[in-house]
Amino acid sequence: MKITILAIGKKHDPLLMRAIEEYSARASHYVKIEWKLVEAKITGTMPEAHIRKIESEALLSQINPGEIVILLDEHGTEVDSPTLAQKLQSYMSQSTKTVTVVIGGAYGVDETISKIADFTWSLSKLVFPHQLVRLILIEQLYRAHTILAGEKYHHQ
Amino acid sequence: MKITILAIGKKHDPLLMRAIEEYSARASHYVKIEWKLVEAKITGTMPEAHIRKIESEALLSQINPGEIVILLDEHGTEVDSPTLAQKLQSYMSQSTKTVTVVIGGAYGVDETISKIADFTWSLSKLVFPHQLVRLILIEQLYRAHTILAGEKYHHQ
Repeated sequence: MKITILAIGKKHDPLLMRAIEEYSARASHYVKIEWKLVEAKITGTMPEAHIRKIESEALLSQINPGEIVILLDEHGTEVDSPTLAQKLQSYMSQSTKTVTVVIGGAYGVDETISKIADFTWSLSKLVFPHQLVRLILIEQLYRAHTILAGEKYHHQ
Repeated sequence: MKITILAIGKKHDPLLMRAIEEYSARASHYVKIEWKLVEAKITGTMPEAHIRKIESEALLSQINPGEIVILLDEHGTEVDSPTLAQKLQSYMSQSTKTVTVVIGGAYGVDETISKIADFTWSLSKLVFPHQLVRLILIEQLYRAHTILAGEKYHHQ
């Protein structure tokens, strides 16, 4: 069982890198975590739809057939942390497949990604910067596993 | 006009400190930002309700009469980033008073704080660690001001 986090942009923000690495290490006590950071060849002058298309192609090329895909998208469904934990448990018990969580770029992803997503998840009604989404996500994956393990980290 | 962020716990998490300082500096271009970090004398053996009471007293002692109080609480109301921006603008135009945003401790706050709150705000259905809430909050305060100033930072 493995959780892959697939995101646009080769590097973590230096300001957040240590925190992202810390929560990745903590989550790794429960499940194998892999960051797949992909670069798309975009330029600042491209229209948004074009950027979205190129970034979606770059992401799609990293998703293997049969993987369970969770797409982070502000138009998705919000869940609370215990519900997220149950959802992950359900995906993990269904198969030994990889669960891939996709974080699109600043303009989101196109339908080539959204149509293959098993779950489209919104973290909040708020819009967060891409790099902060990485940190929030990895902390929630860690939290979910502490909830499943009945540990004290999570307070209701 | 000033925004005070009032939180339990004297220090920022070293892992997040630079990011919190960066967004505080960015937000300060638009509005005076003051962090008021208070310590409450609690011990690990205290019951949750007792911790909540002591922490609430410590917070309350830092709130001045007439301040507009926004309480961060997971049972509050979620808003999107543009709505938050409008809300802040409305509070700021009502008066020259300080807007104080309160982040309670791990067990939340009691009714002495909740009853004086002008707005009880939930960032998300998810539970975040206290220190990450500080970062998410200051980024949203910065974002709100870029939205009000019509700047490019915020994407819909």
